[in-house]
Amino acid sequence: MGAAGNGGDEAERGTVVTPSAEFPPLGHEERAALGRIGERWREPRNPDDLPVDPTLGRSGRPPQPTRFGRLAPIEMFTVEEPDELVATGPAHVPGSRAGRLLSRARRTLFGPPISSASVLYERMRKLVALPVLSSDLLSSVAYGPEAMLSVLVLAGSAALGLSLPLAALLVVLMIAVGVSYRQTIPAYPHGAGSYIVASDNLGPTPGLAAAAGLMLDYVLTVSVSVAAGVHAVTSALPGLAPVTVPLGVLVIAVLLAGNLRGVRTAGNLFVLPTYAFVVALLALLVVGYARAAGRGFAPVPPPAVPAAEGLGLLVVLRAFASGAVSMTGIEAVSNAVPAFRPTEWRNARTTLGWMVAMLVALFAGLIGLIHLDGLVPRPGETLLSQVGRATFPAGPWYALLQATTALILLLAANTAFNDFPRLLFFMARDGHAPRRFLHMGDRLAFSNGLVALCIAAGLIFVAFRGNTESLIPLYAVGVFLAFTLSQAGMVVHWRRHRGPGWHRRLALNAVGATLSGLVLLTAAVAKFSEGAWVVVVAVPLLVLLFRRIHRHYATLNEALALHPPATAPPGAAGSAEGEELPQEVRHLVVVPVARLNRASLRALAYAASLGQPALAVHIAPEEAEADRFREQWQAWGDHLRLETIVSPYRAVIGPLAHYLEALRTSRPELTLTVIVPEVVLRRRWHRPLHSRAEQRLRAALRALPGVVVTSVPVHLAE
Amino acid sequence: MGAAGNGGDEAERGTVVTPSAEFPPLGHEERAALGRIGERWREPRNPDDLPVDPTLGRSGRPPQPTRFGRLAPIEMFTVEEPDELVATGPAHVPGSRAGRLLSRARRTLFGPPISSASVLYERMRKLVALPVLSSDLLSSVAYGPEAMLSVLVLAGSAALGLSLPLAALLVVLMIAVGVSYRQTIPAYPHGAGSYIVASDNLGPTPGLAAAAGLMLDYVLTVSVSVAAGVHAVTSALPGLAPVTVPLGVLVIAVLLAGNLRGVRTAGNLFVLPTYAFVVALLALLVVGYARAAGRGFAPVPPPAVPAAEGLGLLVVLRAFASGAVSMTGIEAVSNAVPAFRPTEWRNARTTLGWMVAMLVALFAGLIGLIHLDGLVPRPGETLLSQVGRATFPAGPWYALLQATTALILLLAANTAFNDFPRLLFFMARDGHAPRRFLHMGDRLAFSNGLVALCIAAGLIFVAFRGNTESLIPLYAVGVFLAFTLSQAGMVVHWRRHRGPGWHRRLALNAVGATLSGLVLLTAAVAKFSEGAWVVVVAVPLLVLLFRRIHRHYATLNEALALHPPATAPPGAAGSAEGEELPQEVRHLVVVPVARLNRASLRALAYAASLGQPALAVHIAPEEAEADRFREQWQAWGDHLRLETIVSPYRAVIGPLAHYLEALRTSRPELTLTVIVPEVVLRRRWHRPLHSRAEQRLRAALRALPGVVVTSVPVHLAE
Repeated sequence: MGAAGNGGDEAERGTVVTPSAEFPPLGHEERAALGRIGERWREPRNPDDLPVDPTLGRSGRPPQPTRFGRLAPIEMFTVEEPDELVATGPAHVPGSRAGRLLSRARRTLFGPPISSASVLYERMRKLVALPVLSSDLLSSVAYGPEAMLSVLVLAGSAALGLSLPLAALLVVLMIAVGVSYRQTIPAYPHGAGSYIVASDNLGPTPGLAAAAGLMLDYVLTVSVSVAAGVHAVTSALPGLAPVTVPLGVLVIAVLLAGNLRGVRTAGNLFVLPTYAFVVALLALLVVGYARAAGRGFAPVPPPAVPAAEGLGLLVVLRAFASGAVSMTGIEAVSNAVPAFRPTEWRNARTTLGWMVAMLVALFAGLIGLIHLDGLVPRPGETLLSQVGRATFPAGPWYALLQATTALILLLAANTAFNDFPRLLFFMARDGHAPRRFLHMGDRLAFSNGLVALCIAAGLIFVAFRGNTESLIPLYAVGVFLAFTLSQAGMVVHWRRHRGPGWHRRLALNAVGATLSGLVLLTAAVAKFSEGAWVVVVAVPLLVLLFRRIHRHYATLNEALALHPPATAPPGAAGSAEGEELPQEVRHLVVVPVARLNRASLRALAYAASLGQPALAVHIAPEEAEADRFREQWQAWGDHLRLETIVSPYRAVIGPLAHYLEALRTSRPELTLTVIVPEVVLRRRWHRPLHSRAEQRLRAALRALPGVVVTSVPVHLAE
Repeated sequence: MGAAGNGGDEAERGTVVTPSAEFPPLGHEERAALGRIGERWREPRNPDDLPVDPTLGRSGRPPQPTRFGRLAPIEMFTVEEPDELVATGPAHVPGSRAGRLLSRARRTLFGPPISSASVLYERMRKLVALPVLSSDLLSSVAYGPEAMLSVLVLAGSAALGLSLPLAALLVVLMIAVGVSYRQTIPAYPHGAGSYIVASDNLGPTPGLAAAAGLMLDYVLTVSVSVAAGVHAVTSALPGLAPVTVPLGVLVIAVLLAGNLRGVRTAGNLFVLPTYAFVVALLALLVVGYARAAGRGFAPVPPPAVPAAEGLGLLVVLRAFASGAVSMTGIEAVSNAVPAFRPTEWRNARTTLGWMVAMLVALFAGLIGLIHLDGLVPRPGETLLSQVGRATFPAGPWYALLQATTALILLLAANTAFNDFPRLLFFMARDGHAPRRFLHMGDRLAFSNGLVALCIAAGLIFVAFRGNTESLIPLYAVGVFLAFTLSQAGMVVHWRRHRGPGWHRRLALNAVGATLSGLVLLTAAVAKFSEGAWVVVVAVPLLVLLFRRIHRHYATLNEALALHPPATAPPGAAGSAEGEELPQEVRHLVVVPVARLNRASLRALAYAASLGQPALAVHIAPEEAEADRFREQWQAWGDHLRLETIVSPYRAVIGPLAHYLEALRTSRPELTLTVIVPEVVLRRRWHRPLHSRAEQRLRAALRALPGVVVTSVPVHLAE
C-alpha cells in the first residue's frame, strides 16, 4: 500500500533536496538530438592540441611554492580523476581584497563552508521527531486561546461563556483534520506537503494556491511567533515593552544568522524546550484544576467588561476563526515523512496522533482553566501569563512558564525558517519560483530563501508593530487554504487510486476538507475587513506571479531545448543564430576605435590575431575630425580597413549600433564580433570620470541578433 | 600689443568650444611612436578581403525600399567621401521601442538635433553685447542695496545713515575693479576667464581655486537671481508668497529646458528686458529725485526700528560685504571678448566701461533715493518694490518696474546657464573635470553641465527655502575669490611680459586685486558664521577634487600613451598585456559550460569556429553531477577538450576565476578568451529569474590581466 501507483514519479518529486538540482539531467529526446548534432560537427583542428595543460600539471609535478604568503592559484585545485579537478576551499575566496575581507567576515559569522558530500539525510526516532515537528503546533496554544477570547470579550464579559462550546467545536475540528492528515501520510511516503498533494491531484493552479497559502503561513508564523514570544517576555518584564519592535527584529535577525550558519534540525536543540513547555503547561493545568477543585469548580465571575458591540453571529464566527489558529503547524509531520526511521509512514502517523492528542489536551485544558479563573484578555499582559500568575502566585514556576513559552515560540519561528526555503526549492524545481532558490549556499543552507523569508517576516512584524492580535486575522486564511486544498487533493487521490478501504479514507478526508473549508470561509469573510483581505488579495496575485514565472521558464527551456538538426542540405548556411556548427559560422570582426592609444591598439592587435576578416570603425563628430583621424591611421600604416562614420549630431552608440545592423542586413549570415577595449578602473569613484562607452555599446547591441561583443581589458598601473 | 608673447598657446586655450574637443589630437612623440609600432605589425591576411562591403553598397546601388515604414538601417547612412559614411538623423534614434518613444519625447521638448556644422561663432555689436553681458551685473542692483541695508538695520534705524558712506566706498571699489578688468581684456583677447588667467599666471592650484569660486558663483547666481526674481513677483502679488519654493524650482526647470533646447545667447532675447529694466530704474530715479527736490531734498526720517545688536565694526563690515554682491557679473565681458566684432578687445573694453558706469549710476542713485525716502527693509516686500510704490503711487509704472526686475533676474540666472557649462568644458579640456563635460548634446548644448548646474542650484534654492537674504552671505566669497585671483594673475602677467606702460597697468591691477582681496577677507570673516563657512570649506574641497580628477586622467593618459616599441628581439613574446602586435598574441579559448543546450552549443561552435585552441570547462557541485555531465559530453561527440572542476562548496564564479588565473600562471604569455553564452531577456522583470552568471563572471574576471570575455547572445522567441 502507500505509494500506490505513482511511486517512481513520487521519488523524483519527493522531499529530498540535492545540490545537483540546479543541473537537471537531459531528457531522452534531448540526448538523442545532442548526438545527432554532434555528428555534423566538423572539428577545425585537433581538440587536444592545447598550448597549456588543462589539469595544471597537477598530475605529476611537485607543487609550486606559494608566493607572498598567498596560495598560488594552481595550488587551489587537486586532481581526483583524469580530466577532473577538485576546487579546494581557497578557490572559493575572491581574488580582490574587499572580497577576501568579506569572505573572512562571513566565515567568522557563519562558519567555514560545508562540502556537498555532507548533505544530511538525517533520520529521527519518534521521541526526537515529536518535539522537532510539534513546536510550531504546540506553541500556537500560547496565543490561540487568547486570540479567541479577545474577540468574544468585545461583546462584553457575558459573551465569554461562549468560549466553552467554541472550544469543543475546535477540538472536533482538530481531531477531524488530524485524522485526515493521518490518511495522507501513508499515501505520500516521500513527503506530502500541501503543494505537492494539491498539485498532484487537483492540478497546478490549486497546487500553487496551496503553496501561496503556505508561504504566507510561514512568513506569518515567524511574525506571529516572534510577536507572541516577545509578548511573553514583556508580560514578565513590562520594562521591555517599549522596545518590542527592535527586540523582535533582533530575534528575526538572530534566527536568520543561525539558519544561514546552518543549524540543522538538530533534534537535541528542540527536545528540551518543547518537553519543558509541555511539562510547564501540564503543571499549570494540574495545579490550576486542583485549586478550582478546592472551591468546588465554581467559576470565578470575570470582571465586568462593557460590550463594545452586540453579540452577533459575526462576532462568534470571528472568535471561532481566531481560535482556529491554534491548529497551525499540524501539517508539519506529513511534510517530513522521509525524515522518520523505517517504517517511515507508520512512525510518522503515530507521532501525528500523539501531537494532536497533546494539542487537544493543552488547548481544551487551558480554555477551561481560563473560564474557571474568570480571566479576561487585557493589553500589556498575555492571557497565559495571567493564568500563570493566578496559578503560581509565588516561586520560580511562573518565570519558568514564561521562559519556556518564549523559547518554544522561538523554535516555532525557526520551523518556518526550515520549511519556507524548502517549499521554494520544490517550487523552483518545477519552474514556479526563481531558479536561485535551488542554490545551496556554502553552508548547505538555502541562503536565498532564508533571506527572502527574513525580509518578508521582518517587514510584516514592523508594519504591525509587533502586535500579535492584529496579525492573527491574516494568519488563519493562508493556513486553512493549504489544509483545505491538501485534503481535497486527498479526496481526489482516493477516487483515482481506489486502494483497500478507499471509501472510508475518502470519507475521512472529505470531512477534514469540508471542515477546513468552512473555517477558511469563516476566516476570510468574518475577518475580511480586519486584515484577511490582504491574504485574499495576495494569494491570487502570488498564483499569478508563479504562473508567469513558470511560463517564462517554459518559453526559455523550449527555446534552448536541443532539437535534431533539420534535414536541410548541409552546405546551406542559415541565419547566424540558427546554426550550432562551427563550420557554418562566417566571421566579421569589427573594432570601434575612438582614438589611437595603447588600449585601442591592443584591441586591434587582438582582432587581427584571430585571423578572421576585420574592419575598424571610427565615429567622428565632424568632418574635420574624421580627416584628422584618417591621417593618423595612415601614419600607423593602415593595417586594417578603416571606415569612418561622421555623426553630425555627435551621438556615438546609436550610429554604431545602426551601422552594425546595416552590415548584417546586407549579409544576414554574418556573425559580427565587436571588439572593444575596456580600461579597467581600480577605484569605484573613477567611474563617473569615464563615459563607460563599452557598457553602453554592449547594452545597445544586446538586442541585435548575431552580434557578439568582446571586451579586451587594459589594466592600469601594473 | 595685446596677446603679448603667448598668443599661440592662448589661441589653443581660448574660449572657443568645438565638438571635436572630445577627440584631442596626438602629440608629436605619440605620432612618431605610432608609426614605429605600425612598422612591426605583420598582417595575418589581406586587410581588404572583407565578406561585406563596409560602405554598405551605398556608392553605386540604388537605395533599398524601406520595410514596415521603418527606415532600413542601410538607408541611415549616406556616402560623402570614399571610406566615409555620414549618419543621418534616424541613425541616432535607438532601435528599441522604449528608446524610440523617449527619443520622440525629447525631440518634442527640445527640438530636432542640430548638426555639428551649426556651431555658431556669433559676433555681437556693442549695443547688443551690452544687454547680453550686463544682465547679470545690473540685475544685482535689485538685491544688493537691500542686502546691505538689511544688515545695517540690525543696529537700529539710526545706523541706516551709514549707507551713504558705505555706498561711496562700494562705488570706489566698482570703479577700481572695473578699471582693473579693462586691463585684462586687451591682454587676453581670446577670452580672459578668471580660471584661465589665474592658471596661466599663478599656477594650476590658484586657477582651480578661481574655478571653484566661479562655479559656486554661477550656482548661487541661479539660486539668488531666481529667489530675488520670485520675491519681486511676490512683492507685487503677495498671494503667491506661500508657493515661493515650488515657483522657484519651476523657474529653474524652465531655464534648464530652455537651455537644453539650446536657446543660444541670441541677443534679441536680452536686448528688450535689459534696456527696459534700465529705463524703468532711471525713470524711478528721475521721478524719485524730482519728488525729493520738491521738499528741498529733506530726508524722510525712517520709522524707528529697535537695535537688535550694537553698531560695531563687524556689523559695518558685514553690511559692506553684503552690498558688494551688487558687483557680481562684472567679469562677464572679459570672458566673452571673442564674441565681439573686430577689433574685439577694443569693443569689449568700451562695453565694460559703459556697464560699470551704468552700475555705478543705478546703485548710487538707488541708495540715495532710499535714504531720502526713509525706507527700511522689511520681510514680505523687497526694498526696490517699496521704492517703486513710494515713487509711483498710481499708474502702471510700478507693475512695469516689478515685471522688468523679475525678467532681468531671470536673464541673469540664464547667464549662469551659459557660463557654468563652458567653465566645465574648459576644465574638462585640461583634465580637471570629468570628460563628459566635453560632450555637446544633440542640440549642441553642454547637456551634462546644464543638468549639473540645475541640480546644484535647485538643491540650494530648496535648502534655503528661496530666501534671498540668507543666500547672500554665501555669494560674496566665491565671487571675490575669483576677482582677486584673476587680478592677482594680471599683476604677475605684467611683471612677466613688461609691454609698454606695464608699470601703470600693474599698478591698476594691483589696486583691483588688493581691494577685491580685502572684500574677500571681509566677507569670509564677517559672514563666516552666517553661511560663508560653507564656501570657505567647499572651495578647498573642490580644488582637492579637481586635482584628484586631474591626477587620475594623467595616470590614465600616461598608461595609454603610445611609446616607441622596445628594442627587444622581435621573436621574444612579452606578457600578454605588454605587446600590441597581432603576431605575438597566443590564444586559448575557454568555454564555461553549465549544461548542454542551444545556448552553450552556440558558444562552443563560435569558439571552435575561431580556429584557435579551445577548452571547455564544467563546474559541478558534486562528483555525481560531474560524471553525468561527462557522459553527456561523450554522447555529443567529445568535440572539444573538456575539463570538469568539482566545486564541493557549490560556488561557480570563484573557482572558475581561480582556474583561469591558474592557467595563466602556468603560461603567462597566453591570452585567454572566455566565451560565455548570454540569454538576452526581453523583459526587465525576468532578470531576477536568472543568475546573471555572465555578468558576475565578467566582474570577477575584470581584475585578471590577459583575460578577454566574449558574450555570445542568444535571443529568445525570434
